[in-house]
Amino acid sequence: MDFYAEALKLHEEHHGKISVSSKVPIETRDDLSVAYTPGVAEPCRKIHDDPTQAWRYTCKANTIAVVTNGTAVLGLGDIGPMAGLPVMEGKAVLFKRFGGVDAFPICLDARTPEEVIAATKAIAPGFGGINLEDIKSPDCFEIERVLERDLDIPVFHDDQHGTAIVVTAALLNALAVVGKRIEDVRIVHNGPGAAGNAIIKMMLAAGARHIIACDEFGSLYPGRDNMDPYKAELADLTNPEGYQGTLAEAMAGADVLVGTSKGNLVSQEMVRSMAERPIVFAMANPTPEISYEDARAAGAAVVGTGRSDNPNQINNLLCFPGLFKGALAVRSRDINDDMKVAAARAIAGCVPAEERGPESIIPSALDPKVAAAVAHAVAKAAIGSGSARDAAGISTLEDPSEGGLA
Amino acid sequence: MDFYAEALKLHEEHHGKISVSSKVPIETRDDLSVAYTPGVAEPCRKIHDDPTQAWRYTCKANTIAVVTNGTAVLGLGDIGPMAGLPVMEGKAVLFKRFGGVDAFPICLDARTPEEVIAATKAIAPGFGGINLEDIKSPDCFEIERVLERDLDIPVFHDDQHGTAIVVTAALLNALAVVGKRIEDVRIVHNGPGAAGNAIIKMMLAAGARHIIACDEFGSLYPGRDNMDPYKAELADLTNPEGYQGTLAEAMAGADVLVGTSKGNLVSQEMVRSMAERPIVFAMANPTPEISYEDARAAGAAVVGTGRSDNPNQINNLLCFPGLFKGALAVRSRDINDDMKVAAARAIAGCVPAEERGPESIIPSALDPKVAAAVAHAVAKAAIGSGSARDAAGISTLEDPSEGGLA
Repeated sequence: MDFYAEALKLHEEHHGKISVSSKVPIETRDDLSVAYTPGVAEPCRKIHDDPTQAWRYTCKANTIAVVTNGTAVLGLGDIGPMAGLPVMEGKAVLFKRFGGVDAFPICLDARTPEEVIAATKAIAPGFGGINLEDIKSPDCFEIERVLERDLDIPVFHDDQHGTAIVVTAALLNALAVVGKRIEDVRIVHNGPGAAGNAIIKMMLAAGARHIIACDEFGSLYPGRDNMDPYKAELADLTNPEGYQGTLAEAMAGADVLVGTSKGNLVSQEMVRSMAERPIVFAMANPTPEISYEDARAAGAAVVGTGRSDNPNQINNLLCFPGLFKGALAVRSRDINDDMKVAAARAIAGCVPAEERGPESIIPSALDPKVAAAVAHAVAKAAIGSGSARDAAGISTLEDPSEGGLA
Repeated sequence: MDFYAEALKLHEEHHGKISVSSKVPIETRDDLSVAYTPGVAEPCRKIHDDPTQAWRYTCKANTIAVVTNGTAVLGLGDIGPMAGLPVMEGKAVLFKRFGGVDAFPICLDARTPEEVIAATKAIAPGFGGINLEDIKSPDCFEIERVLERDLDIPVFHDDQHGTAIVVTAALLNALAVVGKRIEDVRIVHNGPGAAGNAIIKMMLAAGARHIIACDEFGSLYPGRDNMDPYKAELADLTNPEGYQGTLAEAMAGADVLVGTSKGNLVSQEMVRSMAERPIVFAMANPTPEISYEDARAAGAAVVGTGRSDNPNQINNLLCFPGLFKGALAVRSRDINDDMKVAAARAIAGCVPAEERGPESIIPSALDPKVAAAVAHAVAKAAIGSGSARDAAGISTLEDPSEGGLA
């Protein structure tokens, strides 16, 4: 199938992919008087008296904004907010389909972090959460930091943390397949941008000890040239032996390659230079660092990509619908580290040990039980960590441990 | 029916009134590859190459933002953006139900005109139009002026122009019922805020010569105290005889009262002091200046209010769904005066002469043919006045003159 041609056809046929629906009937004058004026004044007054009633009486309860300024859209780069809209609409469709979450694209004509922050804070009252999307690095770090600090609803940069959660889930299962422990393996990461930064930190939190982060100038080490403060921080956190070299040199003998960089940067020769039974996660979109087929042919024991047309799709779709579903269910104030770890474990746990294999380290992106498992685990972690405003809300979620889902 | 109690029940049951729906199926891996990555990159590239393609490939084609900062919500006043959300959701429901337009509430945490303008400009790329709503006067004038000037999509403050369009439609038919001409009648307007300003200007445009505008200090006349620049402008445009007096004094002998002020400001005695067969439009929400029953009992020949539980509901619902439907159909750059006049005439024309009467001066807000008639008239006016970017788009609208609708 020619996905590009089909995509044009699909998007033109419907003028995009999302629409706004009414949950209430408007057939009679009484309907109008209840859903609109004069009746609507009463929920307005209740919320004015007590702002928490917004979660009770409005769509804020189940609605998030998918916010971008279009500066780092897929692998296409800085194409602007309007050209990024098809991706944001796609995200909204997936939020609804898998998490039952109402998500709406907000494509910001905003170049600087300050402008993105101001506009996102301005629109926040109507939303129960903010999913930041496709904002270039390093701006995304500052934007997320300030919004997390200043808003009382979850703010989550999916390109960073969604990817990190799913990579961590996939890595745990892939290591089980090849019989290695995360503490022992040598990991090379290429492309320390938005996603890479979060992936590296989450792998460290999961127990990894030997990570070398590379950018276009080679490995990061303290004092290297051409590093912004975020890379300098990674240089301090990783590469304990102070290794200096190119990506190709760093890959020799490594057990794991995690790429969040650009297409076609990794050759079969580079994969052949890795340790026995190597793991390759090549996640550049839409073209991976090395294709699934080429990586497997070069001896990779487990290969993951971001593409839905390959096995082992390392796709944040496995995370974000359930993550926000769980956070919204308990009216969480944020998405904290406990909730992220809970999400990673829930995703990994959706592949039973007996089903794990080289082509089966993560559940299918289409498996409906994943979002349910993630939502419940995330809501539980929000309650346990004190972020939930409404612990009782977890009862609205299916509990996967009670069977019927597995 | 207790509309307030029913409204609370309805809003709590559904957590508000709107949701986001997908227009495309996501069942298979191929579906994912077409609606999302990698396929979605292709419409992104097309829009990046040519921004007008956003109307072809995205929801921008049929989506508008309902923007408020919550400073003048219904008759409730400055209750803030979150407490205004039920009204904005209601508006979105009505846009969809009557115009087939996808509308999404944007409730801005923005106090000053500058903040509202900045946030609205920031979100504009994802929308085909901006409906400003419930923003206090006089801030709304400056906000609309700058947004109209700087954005290439329609910007329409419904509280001003939507109300003015429907009042003009209703007035034309009411005058026909009582057998008076707009050029001859003495009109008193009370409450020269957002709606009042636009209503006065539109009545003048429709031929009215004798209008006295009143605020809480009485009639406006050049040089009066307590006037902002907007009231001073109205003082210059109206009251040719320089009448000075209270609302009650001004109403004595007047043919028409149009109120867009506060509830219960007008007594039966004041209505009795009007000319023969007077017309009273008492549009304060949710409580009119005088109730429908009291105004009729005091001798008003035709009474209109904003309430859906009275006859002659002067409701902008008659205008905004069709107005934006028509503007979006031809990708209009703005909503100009020709389009507004076309909308008023189309609404008035939906009540055939033989059906006009004291309780039937405007069509029912539930009549589906109104939005169709307005949309076609507005699209035609947009083409005629040079605002349409896609004249061929009118063919997607039903043409009421071709029958089948009337």
